[in-house]
Amino acid sequence: MEEDSNQYAEASFPNSETEVYLEERDPESNSLHQPLLKRNRTLSSSPLAIVGAKVSHIESLDYEINENDLFKQDWRSRSEVQVLQYIFLKWTLAFLVGLLTGLIATLINLAVENIAGYKLLAVVGFIQEERYLTGFIYLTASNFLLTFLAAILCVCFAPTAAGPGIPEIKAYLNGVDTPNMFGATTLIVKIIGSIGAVSAGLDLGKEGPLVHIGSCIASLLGQGGPDNHRIKWRWLRYFNNDRDRRDLITCGASSGVCAAFRAPVGGVLFSLEEVATWWRSALLWRTFFSTAVVVVVLRAFMEICNSGQCGLFGTGGLIMFDVSNVTVRYRLMDIIPIVLIGIIGGVLGSLYNHLLHKVLRLYNLINQKGKLHKLLLSLTVSLFTSACLYGLPFLAKCTPCDSSLPDSACPTNGRSGNFKQFNCPKGHYNDLATLLLTTNDDAVRNIFSTNTPSEYNPFSLLIFFALYCILGLFTFGIAVPSGLFLPIILMGSAYGRLLGIAMRSYTNIDQGLYAVLGAASLMAGSMRMTVSLCVIFLELTNNLLLLPITMIVLLIAKTVGDSFNPSIYEIILHLKGLPFLDANPEPWMRNLTVGELADAKPPVVTLCGVEKVAHVVDVLRNTTHNAFPVVDGGVVPPVGLAEGATELHGLILRAHLVQVLKKKWFLREKRRTEEWEVKEKFTSMDLAEREGKIEEVAVTSDEMEMYIDLQPLTNTTPFTVVESMSVAKAMVLFRQVGLRHLLIIPKYQAAGVPPVIGILTRQDLRSYNILSAFPHLARSKSREKGN
Amino acid sequence: MEEDSNQYAEASFPNSETEVYLEERDPESNSLHQPLLKRNRTLSSSPLAIVGAKVSHIESLDYEINENDLFKQDWRSRSEVQVLQYIFLKWTLAFLVGLLTGLIATLINLAVENIAGYKLLAVVGFIQEERYLTGFIYLTASNFLLTFLAAILCVCFAPTAAGPGIPEIKAYLNGVDTPNMFGATTLIVKIIGSIGAVSAGLDLGKEGPLVHIGSCIASLLGQGGPDNHRIKWRWLRYFNNDRDRRDLITCGASSGVCAAFRAPVGGVLFSLEEVATWWRSALLWRTFFSTAVVVVVLRAFMEICNSGQCGLFGTGGLIMFDVSNVTVRYRLMDIIPIVLIGIIGGVLGSLYNHLLHKVLRLYNLINQKGKLHKLLLSLTVSLFTSACLYGLPFLAKCTPCDSSLPDSACPTNGRSGNFKQFNCPKGHYNDLATLLLTTNDDAVRNIFSTNTPSEYNPFSLLIFFALYCILGLFTFGIAVPSGLFLPIILMGSAYGRLLGIAMRSYTNIDQGLYAVLGAASLMAGSMRMTVSLCVIFLELTNNLLLLPITMIVLLIAKTVGDSFNPSIYEIILHLKGLPFLDANPEPWMRNLTVGELADAKPPVVTLCGVEKVAHVVDVLRNTTHNAFPVVDGGVVPPVGLAEGATELHGLILRAHLVQVLKKKWFLREKRRTEEWEVKEKFTSMDLAEREGKIEEVAVTSDEMEMYIDLQPLTNTTPFTVVESMSVAKAMVLFRQVGLRHLLIIPKYQAAGVPPVIGILTRQDLRSYNILSAFPHLARSKSREKGN
Repeated sequence: MEEDSNQYAEASFPNSETEVYLEERDPESNSLHQPLLKRNRTLSSSPLAIVGAKVSHIESLDYEINENDLFKQDWRSRSEVQVLQYIFLKWTLAFLVGLLTGLIATLINLAVENIAGYKLLAVVGFIQEERYLTGFIYLTASNFLLTFLAAILCVCFAPTAAGPGIPEIKAYLNGVDTPNMFGATTLIVKIIGSIGAVSAGLDLGKEGPLVHIGSCIASLLGQGGPDNHRIKWRWLRYFNNDRDRRDLITCGASSGVCAAFRAPVGGVLFSLEEVATWWRSALLWRTFFSTAVVVVVLRAFMEICNSGQCGLFGTGGLIMFDVSNVTVRYRLMDIIPIVLIGIIGGVLGSLYNHLLHKVLRLYNLINQKGKLHKLLLSLTVSLFTSACLYGLPFLAKCTPCDSSLPDSACPTNGRSGNFKQFNCPKGHYNDLATLLLTTNDDAVRNIFSTNTPSEYNPFSLLIFFALYCILGLFTFGIAVPSGLFLPIILMGSAYGRLLGIAMRSYTNIDQGLYAVLGAASLMAGSMRMTVSLCVIFLELTNNLLLLPITMIVLLIAKTVGDSFNPSIYEIILHLKGLPFLDANPEPWMRNLTVGELADAKPPVVTLCGVEKVAHVVDVLRNTTHNAFPVVDGGVVPPVGLAEGATELHGLILRAHLVQVLKKKWFLREKRRTEEWEVKEKFTSMDLAEREGKIEEVAVTSDEMEMYIDLQPLTNTTPFTVVESMSVAKAMVLFRQVGLRHLLIIPKYQAAGVPPVIGILTRQDLRSYNILSAFPHLARSKSREKGN
Repeated sequence: MEEDSNQYAEASFPNSETEVYLEERDPESNSLHQPLLKRNRTLSSSPLAIVGAKVSHIESLDYEINENDLFKQDWRSRSEVQVLQYIFLKWTLAFLVGLLTGLIATLINLAVENIAGYKLLAVVGFIQEERYLTGFIYLTASNFLLTFLAAILCVCFAPTAAGPGIPEIKAYLNGVDTPNMFGATTLIVKIIGSIGAVSAGLDLGKEGPLVHIGSCIASLLGQGGPDNHRIKWRWLRYFNNDRDRRDLITCGASSGVCAAFRAPVGGVLFSLEEVATWWRSALLWRTFFSTAVVVVVLRAFMEICNSGQCGLFGTGGLIMFDVSNVTVRYRLMDIIPIVLIGIIGGVLGSLYNHLLHKVLRLYNLINQKGKLHKLLLSLTVSLFTSACLYGLPFLAKCTPCDSSLPDSACPTNGRSGNFKQFNCPKGHYNDLATLLLTTNDDAVRNIFSTNTPSEYNPFSLLIFFALYCILGLFTFGIAVPSGLFLPIILMGSAYGRLLGIAMRSYTNIDQGLYAVLGAASLMAGSMRMTVSLCVIFLELTNNLLLLPITMIVLLIAKTVGDSFNPSIYEIILHLKGLPFLDANPEPWMRNLTVGELADAKPPVVTLCGVEKVAHVVDVLRNTTHNAFPVVDGGVVPPVGLAEGATELHGLILRAHLVQVLKKKWFLREKRRTEEWEVKEKFTSMDLAEREGKIEEVAVTSDEMEMYIDLQPLTNTTPFTVVESMSVAKAMVLFRQVGLRHLLIIPKYQAAGVPPVIGILTRQDLRSYNILSAFPHLARSKSREKGN
């Protein structure tokens, strides 16, 4: 897979990656042209990834607390009232995230149900009048227009709104900032685009987009509004840091899943198992609060809609696909079909991952050609989908209604409901139209329908399955907001129900449950989640007695899938080139020390405690490092040590250096500053600022000769490792503590030894980058595997 | 609370703690009588805690991978087959943990239902014959004997089997080893004791004990059997380390909760939220597998028992307290009683925590007096309980049966069932007997009973509530295996149902649901869990529509409870003096550096790379440190550095030094050893051995003059912090990475600076210990609060 990282991209992305790496400047490389000693290989690391649909520079996030003097002062001076303000605001924001996500989810649901509903009603009308061609044109045209709306918005205004957004959120919570991911434009385009794409009958869900929407809301609330119109409310300054924003986005992602599936516990667990990298018990609780708010909002709107004020939205409860009316009584023999479902789900899931990967690479080539091509691709998929949805039901035979069903239940002609009449005579229904000529949600509901063992013809299910396999592969990569959950559920339920029909004579498990288990197994086979999927399915179907078999199916499907390829989200992360740090280090990382890693990098650039402005400007202009160790030589240590010692003060961030230059906080002579001098000039707001660029700073030649006291802004407590530390352990530390920079210090103590011999970043710890600098490790890689 | 740590204890515990600390040897103290420079205060740390019921030395666990040469060789030489063996065994053990926990849980259930069932049947028989005194004597005597059995086993054979065991498991997973906690004797006593205590009708549950049983099984399986009769199977060597045992015990704890509540997802989440400190996605999956096995086992036995082969165990499904037959339709006004339940639950829960704390301290004084007193205390509680259970129902009035109920449903006379006849005439039932003269599980089932709004008289419920408040406080601390879940559920359901009766005219929520919500709120108020409780209640009651209100109740109750005191498990951990490391550092820890902490400790004792035997023996005999930094002076660094540098090799464990001395792996001359020499003498099995004591080692005076090459056994990759690191960040590192020792290295680089200036252990990072060495921080403590 390595060779195609960064291939899932659009126009601006050249064919040869290595060229990009050389042309673009590496923010952690050192171009101060210092002599390179005893180095025959270099650890080059690319900070490029595909964000939205274009190659962008990505930055790491500062999840570590930057404990410099200013922070400590600010923190010490926080009164109890301010602490209470912070706690109050934290919970208020969690409440608002839940509330807004719930409201927007309701809005999307209302819009989709009404737009798609009226569209389908009209089509059904034409069919009843046997005006088949008019019906086809009507359906195709409306789907075309809706897709066009969604695609044009994504292509022109917010390329990051296309796709599900979950991989980027996963990367964000792992410590990788992706530009334009959580902006106001993205949010609005995502909402409208999602409504358009789902109403257009495309084979995609609103689940992934809702997770992204929840996260956008959380991020915007945390920063006080869109980038250009932020509310500069004093209270919000507490949230002006990456740590608190991370917590908020976790709440947002959970709320999104909760709103998508009406599954509050499932939402929390989804964030915990799949999305989040760090997790605290306190966060579990806050996330849970957000999802509780979402459920209350959804519930309140359902109460309103139950009285018929929501157009075609109609009645409905919190359970989306209720199968609780089936008594689950299974015998030992039933284990065979259950295991079978799990195995097939795992195989199909990993096959889907494999094929989707190929399709995304193909789409990359098309999308590279420009905006028009992206738009055309989306519209082609829309036309193909419409043609299939309308045309295929004509292939199915009309089935007479079961006489035990009341007349109102079979056949139906409305926008939703089971046993659709379509082109059939009275008292007959078209089973394929029941699945195809409806919204995706209703299709799931119909295929999950229980106690209807003979509703679907195997031939119709086969067509349905084949169609959704094709659509599932070719719809995901187009330039509209698209979720993966629903396509996989549709595919899985079709194969599950097919299997149920095949096994009919052996077991007495209900066909609807087969569909549910099939959907669960394919989800596990593709997405590789366990507990969260189990709870989501429980909350979707409201059948607790199904839990043990769901668990077994999920475990088998995941095991089978894992033996073929990684999960779909990991594949996408890889394709996009996002530097995601895995939980487990590779086994060969134990054979490499961080010292060897540091040797393969250009030497570290350090600054002095009180540094000349000229040198600071030089360093900032000529390197792209984001932090510099602050080191003083020739100091006299406090007690009993020889003179001429060197001292490690800490680490200073590029952003803070730029701030100092911008504010022109220079000293005429080389001296330490007093606490009040710093306080006068800098606030904690300034420190949170990350936007400044060295190119925007103008320094006169007079000023160049002045000094800066870096120490008040230096993080005096950076995390460090000794050079003999293994890369495996350093990576565990890096990920567990949530670092951006890790200093390497020598294991020798002597005069003349530099106190810092290297600095590691996220990119240096990625196995791909290490393996290209140390190719001999790659050879041992294939042999060694472990936990 | 600080002043009473280590008070919850038995006989051997003296009154003044400080005396104990001075008499007992501190394993991390240094008594080599080196001069103490510039130290006016010392950071003393006590490694004592109450384990089971006596003061014991506790040790930290090595969750960090000890990367020494031998480990690396062993690890590099692992073939692919061995890796597969390891993975296979890992899953087999997870399977066995689930299987055995499920079997034992079934055994306990069968035994309890049959013993308690026949006992109650006999008592009901006497009452029907109006032989009230005989009935009383029969009940009291059988309860007395059962309690005696449970208590005598706990007191004489396994004091660690008393109580729930959850706090100790929590501590184990946090990195604190408590002796005799997971042995075979403990397991057997816990099983028999739990059967005895629960059958005796005491106000305690089998839930906590089942968690402990699951963990014991996991630990015993991992080490290949009881301490004295371990299977020396080669495959099991992979599990002979603290990390893999930690994972197994996590599986065991989840399986226990799952077996107790028949709640597989709840079990996993309970471990995740309450018990475990570290968590990985891979572990989530394995734990889930274990609980799935438990559910399948339980389910299989239920199928068998449904055909009537289990005596009085009778029929029953996976849902313990099913309330799914109630339609939950709530209006906006219903929010008032829901909020009320939450608030009262929080207040009552924290009040319960507070009072239980006092009672446990009182019991400590009694238990100190000896085994006989412990036994007498248990028996007194048993007598009191029996008297109340039998006598109080006579206070209740007989209620005529509702005419809508069939004759077989009201009144009942069997061992279980609602509407018990007791002393009432035909067609009448005694509502208090329905709750009291039954097993605890049935009592919960009866009080949760839905669609029976007028079953219970408020007066009866009040008596029930008051009785269970008293019993809940005075039963927990006695010397039998006891869980906290069921007493709290009983108390909570009583008050919930009472509140339901009080609010009857305002809302139309079912009385049974009030009981469920009351139980949930009191659980949250006392144990402070959220998501896991929510899922456990969902799985207990099988009513998904209840989920949103359960969430709100839990959130409110936890918030209210947290504003008064910590959770009950934290209180017990504190009482026992277990050095649990919290997730969040105290705010004042930012104002202290690890360098200051190291100054307050005796100087660090280091060893050389090749060390004289005499010095090693001396150090081991005169200190109780568990690890020593290995440092060489006067080395010549590889390139460009001045001679006379000092080098940090790493950290060597006491256990490994003892091993070297035991094996007499000495060198005649001072030289480095070859790889094969080490391999010949030591296996990875030897390195996992932790039992050896220096007192058992005899070294001749000839041998004393020889040398040991420590380097092959030295962990070359210890985690380090620079002395300027704040204690807050060091603590985050310590906990997140799971350390036992953290080396402090100087921030200066110069000749003559020692490469290690201190070593931190778990005890040094506990706020209580720090505050006693730095009293001025305590003053600022009260002012500062944060996230």
